[in-house]
Amino acid sequence: MSKQELELIGQDGACCPEVSAAPLDEGRAAELAKVFKALGDPVRLRLLSMIASRAGGEVCVCEMTPAFDLSQPTISHHLKLLRQAGLIDCERRGTWVYYRILPGALDRLAAFLATPHTEGATA
Amino acid sequence: MSKQELELIGQDGACCPEVSAAPLDEGRAAELAKVFKALGDPVRLRLLSMIASRAGGEVCVCEMTPAFDLSQPTISHHLKLLRQAGLIDCERRGTWVYYRILPGALDRLAAFLATPHTEGATA
Repeated sequence: MSKQELELIGQDGACCPEVSAAPLDEGRAAELAKVFKALGDPVRLRLLSMIASRAGGEVCVCEMTPAFDLSQPTISHHLKLLRQAGLIDCERRGTWVYYRILPGALDRLAAFLATPHTEGATA
Repeated sequence: MSKQELELIGQDGACCPEVSAAPLDEGRAAELAKVFKALGDPVRLRLLSMIASRAGGEVCVCEMTPAFDLSQPTISHHLKLLRQAGLIDCERRGTWVYYRILPGALDRLAAFLATPHTEGATA
């Protein structure tokens, strides 16, 4: 196993054993539920994918609002919930706020959901 | 690329390009939001992990209820929401209902969340 692989496992697995490893305790379940709840809204998922799919990794709030039939305060509220869930971060520069995905956040969730016995599904 | 890899991609990727591939359209965002909403509750996450981590792959509802300070109808309601989200399935045998993870459901979500450019985070 390469150093890089070990680092990836440390980053993405150490804090969050996968869902199929063992029954979750109440505390961890409460933490994870907050993150999934933040993802449980179509507008927030679209905002997240707009940010995650941006080549430069950063999107101005001024670019996101026109994609929705919603007011800018509403969009900002959804972005705040994603930020509180630890999925994105932002930085104000001049008039505008720029959003980016927090490194590792989505991969940690993916690692939590992935099941090690997927092979069976291809049979 | 092996046949198995192609099948995996077909199962896990064809229906759900990852979040970082492109901005989600409204329809897909609405579908995915339903699934994440189902996961956005600590009791449902604990139920899911109880089922996913069971060696035999199947758990009787009668084994799940005692782990919670909740009535059996409440537990059954949470299980119904997980079932409606396409995450689990169930089968009645005699007096009891047995729950299992729907093959591929969690892996498809994991594939949606995983970002292909994780390597950058290890630098």
